[in-house]
Amino acid sequence: MPRYPEYSARASLVAGSVFERFAAKLKQQTEPYVKLHIGDTYMRPPFELPLGEAFLDAHPTTFQYCNTFGVGALRSTICEKLAQENALDIASNQVMLTSGASNALSNSAQGLLDPGDEVLVLTPAWPFFRGMVRLAGGVVNELPVYMEMYADRELDLAARVESAITPRTVAIYVNTPNNPSGKVVPREQLTVLADIAKRHSLWVISDEAYDGLAFDDREHVSIGSLPGMFDQTLSIFTFSKAYMFAGLRLGFVAASETTIATLNKLMIHQLYGPTTVGQHMMVEPMRRRNEWLPKLRQHYQQLRDAFVGALEFDVHQPEGTYFVFFDATPHLRGRDIIQVVDACIDQGVSVAPGGDFGTHFENHLRLCFTADDPERVLAGASRLNRVMNA
Amino acid sequence: MPRYPEYSARASLVAGSVFERFAAKLKQQTEPYVKLHIGDTYMRPPFELPLGEAFLDAHPTTFQYCNTFGVGALRSTICEKLAQENALDIASNQVMLTSGASNALSNSAQGLLDPGDEVLVLTPAWPFFRGMVRLAGGVVNELPVYMEMYADRELDLAARVESAITPRTVAIYVNTPNNPSGKVVPREQLTVLADIAKRHSLWVISDEAYDGLAFDDREHVSIGSLPGMFDQTLSIFTFSKAYMFAGLRLGFVAASETTIATLNKLMIHQLYGPTTVGQHMMVEPMRRRNEWLPKLRQHYQQLRDAFVGALEFDVHQPEGTYFVFFDATPHLRGRDIIQVVDACIDQGVSVAPGGDFGTHFENHLRLCFTADDPERVLAGASRLNRVMNA
Repeated sequence: MPRYPEYSARASLVAGSVFERFAAKLKQQTEPYVKLHIGDTYMRPPFELPLGEAFLDAHPTTFQYCNTFGVGALRSTICEKLAQENALDIASNQVMLTSGASNALSNSAQGLLDPGDEVLVLTPAWPFFRGMVRLAGGVVNELPVYMEMYADRELDLAARVESAITPRTVAIYVNTPNNPSGKVVPREQLTVLADIAKRHSLWVISDEAYDGLAFDDREHVSIGSLPGMFDQTLSIFTFSKAYMFAGLRLGFVAASETTIATLNKLMIHQLYGPTTVGQHMMVEPMRRRNEWLPKLRQHYQQLRDAFVGALEFDVHQPEGTYFVFFDATPHLRGRDIIQVVDACIDQGVSVAPGGDFGTHFENHLRLCFTADDPERVLAGASRLNRVMNA
Repeated sequence: MPRYPEYSARASLVAGSVFERFAAKLKQQTEPYVKLHIGDTYMRPPFELPLGEAFLDAHPTTFQYCNTFGVGALRSTICEKLAQENALDIASNQVMLTSGASNALSNSAQGLLDPGDEVLVLTPAWPFFRGMVRLAGGVVNELPVYMEMYADRELDLAARVESAITPRTVAIYVNTPNNPSGKVVPREQLTVLADIAKRHSLWVISDEAYDGLAFDDREHVSIGSLPGMFDQTLSIFTFSKAYMFAGLRLGFVAASETTIATLNKLMIHQLYGPTTVGQHMMVEPMRRRNEWLPKLRQHYQQLRDAFVGALEFDVHQPEGTYFVFFDATPHLRGRDIIQVVDACIDQGVSVAPGGDFGTHFENHLRLCFTADDPERVLAGASRLNRVMNA
């Protein structure tokens, strides 16, 4: 059982290239050597692309395979950002770019889990992670906590989590700010989780896809920054949410050097490496995030306030992300949840059924208040009011 | 054992979203509905990107998650291309975009192999595929054939392949034009493979990454286009080689509708989907490939002729790709192959050791004649001559 600091047996099935042993020697060459060892082209594509000449001149390698750990300039920018904002004081070899947070989560499951190993998944949770655990041969153990934290600020998280850990538990999956509940887990509760992880030698998979989207000046805490937690934690981020570039498929994972090396072996066997072009594109937006991100967060917070204010039924005000998640049980009025989703569509508004987010949430619904134009989102609220209060 | 048409047990571990059942209903809506069900933003990123305004206006969804099977315009362009050039007459639901051919090959291994299943890998072969098989729990059975085809045009491929098939063989991995040997497998030999695959109900994983790069007017034949072979074959292509856009990480797989649906389930759990931006970028280059690809191929062919002409030791003239692969045994002169690679670097030229391409090729070397500037590549040839004939 690959308890921290052990990895899955699968991860030892693959190795690097025979050529790797020459990498250091090549770096030492003072004269430029002729590069015949890789399969690549010296040419630029002979067709026009919608990329500015200035960009192409600045990044002559933008068409080529990059270092599978990521483009150097972006890795160092990420290190600066994580040190400044997340108290993760890491070196370049402790971060790897991935094809979205999805890919980092998938690699984490593949790298940590042997068949039969359990992951304690705090719920409600992003749907695909459960499938990733199963594809790695693992077993999902769901524990609802985030909605309970809204209801009870003094929730005894330690007792809940301890009672859910079994002899086969290998990792805890925590996601803050949480999709779909919008909960931002406070430092004290993350400290409780960290203490349990340390006591049981559990890996922590920390999904921080909504980093940057905590409202009301709330602090987003990276659990990997808590004392003694860095080596035991895989901290996962994305350019798809606050950065709005889902279409690039780019994210990253920060972890110990040996964990990063293990995940990299798995990634090169999944897709070789993430987009070079996209990595070059994301350097400036990340460096200059203070110019745009606070404004964006403020705008999203206003959208949240307007949307929640327009709803004529009880919901928790989300503390982060761009989702409202609520229990529709009081509004079923003899209908099942599928009929309610159906009724929403008939009224001209689409909602996501809660069953995708965990077995305890079948009668819940998730609403995203930023996916459509703000005026339309408010119209959506009216339509929802009609269905819920029908 | 997932013999054709069965998939791996792993593939049945994951399912789609609860929301999928509403997709058809949403499509039928005549009035635009308010979209609250997905997590996304209605905004464009608030920072400048090096993409032309015309491109951004033409592709307003370029920042967003796309259909995980791929962008419609690119899928239909691929269908036209495959029908015109590869005799693969497929529909849009028989192709899926992937994060490079790597990702398509990885998904194929995950989708077809249960633990202990064997794949007959014709060698020399691209190194990472063997690791992909192992990560899926499979066993690699290497069979050298491509170099033998150079030596013996009448090679009895049927006898060689039949004798290598075991009761546990589930799939054959064939790669033409072949990296690293440069061999373009002729139609007759592919027909031999197809007949064996049909007789034994074997899946065929057809790696066609070097499609478009067959020299001397040779025909590249897609084995999936041979009679009765389409449903049994996963035909895999990339935008990284002839299209020179390795930095986008974009490829595609053509297969039966059920195979594509199975691979898609696996892909969404690996990385969700490939780059939207890159897919929009590749439509025009593919549509207009006759304007640039024949010239490029001609140019590469001239580079091949010049490079092979400059080598003062025996090599097969490659029929496709951009590689020369040769047995350096006659040139060892008491050195081991690692010492020879070392001597090459000392002379200012990097080469790839053959051991990465299969257990039978430890004393081989691979040379890429397009990765560096043509004049430098010729200088590299002189340096190689000195090492080989030392």
